[in-house]
Amino acid sequence: MRQSFDESADPSFGREHLPLLRAEMARQGLDGFLVPHEDEHQNEYLPEANDRLAWVSGFTGSAGAAVVLKDRAAVFVDGRYTLQVREQVDPGLFEIRSLTDGGVPAFLESESAPGAVIGYDPRLHSPDDLYHLRTAAERAGARLQPVEANPLDRAWGAARPPQPKAPIVPHPIEYAGEGSADKRRRLGETMGAEAAVITAAPSIAWLFNVRGGDVRRAPMPLGQAILNKDGTARLFLDPEKVTPGLQAWLGNAVSLEPPEALPAALDALKGQTVLVDPQQSSDWYFDRLHRAGASVVRGMDPCALPRASKNAVEVEGARRAHARDGIAMARFLYWLATEGQTNPPDEIEAATRLERLRDQIPGLKDISFDTIAGALGNAAQPHYHPTHKSNTRAKPGTLLLVDSGGQYLDGTTDITRVVAIGEPDDEMRDRFTRVLRGHIALACLRFPAGTTGSSLDAFARLPLWQAGLDYDHGTGHGVGSYLSVHEGPHRIAKAANFTPLRPGMIVSNEPGYYKSGEYGIRIENLQVVTEPEHIPGGERPMLGFETLTVAPIDRRLIDRDLLEPVERAWLDAYHAKVLAVVGPHVEPEVRAWLAEACAPI
Amino acid sequence: MRQSFDESADPSFGREHLPLLRAEMARQGLDGFLVPHEDEHQNEYLPEANDRLAWVSGFTGSAGAAVVLKDRAAVFVDGRYTLQVREQVDPGLFEIRSLTDGGVPAFLESESAPGAVIGYDPRLHSPDDLYHLRTAAERAGARLQPVEANPLDRAWGAARPPQPKAPIVPHPIEYAGEGSADKRRRLGETMGAEAAVITAAPSIAWLFNVRGGDVRRAPMPLGQAILNKDGTARLFLDPEKVTPGLQAWLGNAVSLEPPEALPAALDALKGQTVLVDPQQSSDWYFDRLHRAGASVVRGMDPCALPRASKNAVEVEGARRAHARDGIAMARFLYWLATEGQTNPPDEIEAATRLERLRDQIPGLKDISFDTIAGALGNAAQPHYHPTHKSNTRAKPGTLLLVDSGGQYLDGTTDITRVVAIGEPDDEMRDRFTRVLRGHIALACLRFPAGTTGSSLDAFARLPLWQAGLDYDHGTGHGVGSYLSVHEGPHRIAKAANFTPLRPGMIVSNEPGYYKSGEYGIRIENLQVVTEPEHIPGGERPMLGFETLTVAPIDRRLIDRDLLEPVERAWLDAYHAKVLAVVGPHVEPEVRAWLAEACAPI
Repeated sequence: MRQSFDESADPSFGREHLPLLRAEMARQGLDGFLVPHEDEHQNEYLPEANDRLAWVSGFTGSAGAAVVLKDRAAVFVDGRYTLQVREQVDPGLFEIRSLTDGGVPAFLESESAPGAVIGYDPRLHSPDDLYHLRTAAERAGARLQPVEANPLDRAWGAARPPQPKAPIVPHPIEYAGEGSADKRRRLGETMGAEAAVITAAPSIAWLFNVRGGDVRRAPMPLGQAILNKDGTARLFLDPEKVTPGLQAWLGNAVSLEPPEALPAALDALKGQTVLVDPQQSSDWYFDRLHRAGASVVRGMDPCALPRASKNAVEVEGARRAHARDGIAMARFLYWLATEGQTNPPDEIEAATRLERLRDQIPGLKDISFDTIAGALGNAAQPHYHPTHKSNTRAKPGTLLLVDSGGQYLDGTTDITRVVAIGEPDDEMRDRFTRVLRGHIALACLRFPAGTTGSSLDAFARLPLWQAGLDYDHGTGHGVGSYLSVHEGPHRIAKAANFTPLRPGMIVSNEPGYYKSGEYGIRIENLQVVTEPEHIPGGERPMLGFETLTVAPIDRRLIDRDLLEPVERAWLDAYHAKVLAVVGPHVEPEVRAWLAEACAPI
Repeated sequence: MRQSFDESADPSFGREHLPLLRAEMARQGLDGFLVPHEDEHQNEYLPEANDRLAWVSGFTGSAGAAVVLKDRAAVFVDGRYTLQVREQVDPGLFEIRSLTDGGVPAFLESESAPGAVIGYDPRLHSPDDLYHLRTAAERAGARLQPVEANPLDRAWGAARPPQPKAPIVPHPIEYAGEGSADKRRRLGETMGAEAAVITAAPSIAWLFNVRGGDVRRAPMPLGQAILNKDGTARLFLDPEKVTPGLQAWLGNAVSLEPPEALPAALDALKGQTVLVDPQQSSDWYFDRLHRAGASVVRGMDPCALPRASKNAVEVEGARRAHARDGIAMARFLYWLATEGQTNPPDEIEAATRLERLRDQIPGLKDISFDTIAGALGNAAQPHYHPTHKSNTRAKPGTLLLVDSGGQYLDGTTDITRVVAIGEPDDEMRDRFTRVLRGHIALACLRFPAGTTGSSLDAFARLPLWQAGLDYDHGTGHGVGSYLSVHEGPHRIAKAANFTPLRPGMIVSNEPGYYKSGEYGIRIENLQVVTEPEHIPGGERPMLGFETLTVAPIDRRLIDRDLLEPVERAWLDAYHAKVLAVVGPHVEPEVRAWLAEACAPI
C-alpha cells in the first residue's frame, strides 16, 4: 500500500514550468491557455501524469483551474483550499482568485484583451463549461480556440510521467451479482438511443465487470466504450493493460480495441441517435459526433443509476466487507483507548497504525483514500490530510478525528470516528452529542419513493441549528461497490439533487462540527437504502436505511442526558450489533474492551 | 364580493368553438395551433377574456394546454384535474393526455405530420417552453411558426369578453412601507443591466406602489414597465384604467403610456443591456429585443426578491390583517362548534357564511381566492372547490375542511382549518395529530441563512412518513402583501427551489392528509421568516418563523398522548395568543367558546 504524507508540488513548479508553457503557447499563436484541474477522464483523483494544474502552478488540490496569459496568470480555488494554495503557489507568478465567485468566466470577461486568442483543450472541458467560458471571452472581444496538441503537454514533454497502465482483471460474478451481458442487454433496451458513449471510469468497470488500477485509491481502469442497443459493445483500452483471458471474460459481443480506434468508431455512428452524458464526457465527444452526423442525445450516463442501486449480491458483499473492516477498527480504537491515552500518537502514527491493521484484513486491495487523522485544530479543517509538515501530536483534553476506509473485493468502506484523548470538556460533549443526534435522526428516517437526499439533509443538522451551529459540507455521498468511495448520482446535501434515493444505494451519513483552531467532530457510517416496506396501517411503502458500518462510537463523548429515549435505544441497539458482529473475531483483550465500549448508554 | 360556485365552461364549448378555430387556422395556412393555459401576463388566475383553453375545449383548470390539428385535437392536464377534465371536455373532440408525462412536446414529436406548419402565439409562451416545443416538432419534421394575429382570438371575435379595466389606485406608504422612487433607485443600482423589462403583475403593483383589479381575487393591474438604471421608468397601462391623480402619485420620473407604445419602447433599448425574466416574460419580448439590437440578460425579475422580503411596515400590516381576520374565523368556528354540530351545513352554506363574516371585517377588499369548503370525501381532493353540482352536506362523524382567505389593504391572509362534525373516530384523530405535529415541527425550526424551503419541507412530513403516509402537494407557498395569495420565488416543497428563505418572507405552513373518498385534513397557518437571531452559545445567527394566523385548532381532533411535551407547549402558547389577540374583539358568547377552545391541551 503506497503511503503518502507529502504534498508533491511546490511553488518552484511555476518558476520552472510557466516559461515552458508560454513558449509553447507562442509557437501555437495563442495569447492565453486554459488549464482546468479535470483531465480527459473527468475523475476526482487524477493520475500524476494528468495533474496539469499541479505541474504548471504547484497547486495540488482536488478542484481548481488556471488561466495563463502572455504576461500574467491566475489560479482559481474554492474555500477549502485558500490556505493550501498560498503555501503551494508563488504569488509573484499567479494571482489567487475564487473559483466560485464568478470564477474563470468572470476573469476572462474582465481581463481578456480584445482580439486575444485563448486556447483550450476540448478533451478537458465539459460542453456546459465551455459555453460559459466562450460567452465570457466573447463579451471581452476575445476568442476561444480549441487546440489539436495541448501546449502544456508538449511543454511537459519527456519529463511527464507515463500514463497509468495497471492491469485490468475480471470482477467475478460472486461480487458483481449480475453478468456483463445481462447488464448490457438491459441498458441497451432502455437507454432510449441506438448507442451510448460511456467514458466514466466507474461505469466502464461496472458495465464490463472488470477492475483496474489507473486511478489512485480506486480500482478503476481508464478507457471508453460504445454500447449498442442490442447489447454489443466496443471497449477501448490501452493494450498494455489487457491481461490474458480478458477477451474471453468479456465474450464475443465485446470487441476490445486500442484507444486510437475511438475517433473512427465515433465517426461510424453517423445517422444514429447517440446518448452522451455532458457531466461525464468532454466537449470533444459532442463535437466529434456532431461532425460525424450523429444525432446526439444529452442525458445521464445509462450506467449511473443501475451502478448506484446495488443488487442483493453487492449489498451482501458490502455487509461482509464492513464486518471485516470493523475488526481493524476495533483493534485501532482499542489501541487508542489504551496506549493512545497514556502515550498519545501523532497524526501520522495514528494513520499508519490504522493502515497496518486494515492491511491484515482478508480481501483488502487498497485503502479507499489517504487516511485523514486530525489532531487538535487540524481536524477543524473538514478536508485536512496530515503531511510531515503539519503532523501534530494528540494531547490530553483534546479530540482525535480519524476518517478512513478500505477497498475490499466485496465492498468499499468509509468511516469516521472521533476519540477523546484524556478527559473531554463539556462543550466537546455537547457538540459531539448534537452531531450524534443528527446522525441518528438520519439513520432512523422512513421516506417514500421519490425522495431525494436534498429533502433529508437538514434532519442531520437540526440539533446543531437549534444551538446556532452548523457544518459547511454535505451530509452524505454515494459509495461504489469496490469502486470509487465518492460516487453519484445520489447525494445527501443542502444543494439541489434530482436523483431520488433508491433501494440498494449506499450513502454516507456524516454530520460534523468544527471549532476553528481547536477541534473537529464528524461521525460517519455508511448506510444502504432498504427495500420498500409496508408499515402496518400505512398506505405507502416506505424506504429507510440499514447501517453497514460496525464500530463503536466513543461513549465518553456522549452527554446521555441530551439524548431522547428513542436515540438511546438506537445507540444501544447499534452497539449491541457491533459487539455481536465484531466481538467474536478479535483478540480477548480487544473483545473485553469492546464489550465495555458497547455497553448500554 | 363576487360569489362563484359554478364552473363556467362545459363540453358544448368544443362543439361550437373548435370549427371556428379550424376555419381561422385554414385561413392562415396552419396545420395546427398551440393553445396554452397561460395568457400574455403569465398569471395563475386568468381574466375570462384570456381563458383561451376554456373557450376552445371547455376545460377550466388552472393549468393545462391544448393542441388543435386539422383533424384531431388533444387537451393536456395534470393529476389534479383528471376527474374534472372528463366532466368538462367532449372526448369525441379532444383526446385527454398527461401534461407532465412527456406533455405537449412528446405529442408534437409523435403525432405531427412531416412538413406540417404548427402555429403559436409568441406572446403566450416562455422562451424555454418554446425551445422544447420547437425541438420536438422539428424531430417529427414539422415546423413551428409564430402568428401575428392569434387565430383563436379572431375566431372568438365579438363574443370575447372585454379585457378587464379595473381602476388603478395608489397603494399608500402606510401599507407599502417604502416609496416607489426609493424602490426604483435601489433596484436600478443593483440589477446589473442598463434597463429591465418587467411584465409580472405583482411586480408592477409592488414597484410603483399601485393596486388594481384585473386579476381575479388579487388587486393587481395588468401592464408592463421598463425600469432604467437611474430609477426612471416607463409604465404601460390601458388609459381607461388610469384614475385621476395617478400620474401625480407616480411622479415625474415615471412616464405613463398606452400599451401601444410598448413595442417602440423596446426597440429604443437598442445597444443597451436589458434584464428580462424568462419565467415571467414571453418569448415575444426576447425576440423583439434581439431584433432591436439590445443585449438581453436573462435573469430573475429584479422585483421578485425585494417584493417577497416584506419590510417592517408590511410585516406589521400582516400582523394586523391576521388579527382582524381571526375575528371572522373565531365567529365562523364558533358557529360550526354550536349550530354546525346540531344542524350541519353543506359546503356552500359554510363557504357563504364565512365570506359574509369576513365581509364585516374593516379593511377587507375581497377574498383572496374562492373559498374551499370540503365535506366528507370531497375534501380528500386537495384542490377541490365546491360547485352547486358537487355541494355536499356535512354529517355527524365526519370532518369539514375550510380553506379561505382575505385581501386586506394591510395584508393577504390564507388559512385552513378542519372541524369535527359530531364525534371523530380514532383514525381521524391519529391522522390529524400527525399533520399537526408536522405543522409544529416546521413552525419551530431554526435555520441558518442560505437555507431553502426544499431543505425544510420534509420536517412537516416526518410524522406521516413514520406511519407510511404522505400528502401529494407542497408544504408552503409564498404570500404577497395585499397582492397574490400565491407568490414566489420562495416555496417549501419537495421540488428543488433555489431561493433561500429571507427575513420578511411570508410563507404558508400547510401539511395535510387525504383519505380517498372519506375525508381530508389540512392545517394551514401563514408564517413570516424572522430576523437573524443570536442563540446564546451559538456561532451563527439563525432565522426562524413567526406565526401570523390566529385561529384555534380543533382540540377534539388532537390525540394528546401522541404529542411530545415540546409540541404541547407550542400548541398551548399558540392558543393563548389566539385568545389574547382575538378574544377582546368578539361577542361574549364567542369569547366564552374561544376561551374553552384555547384552553391548554
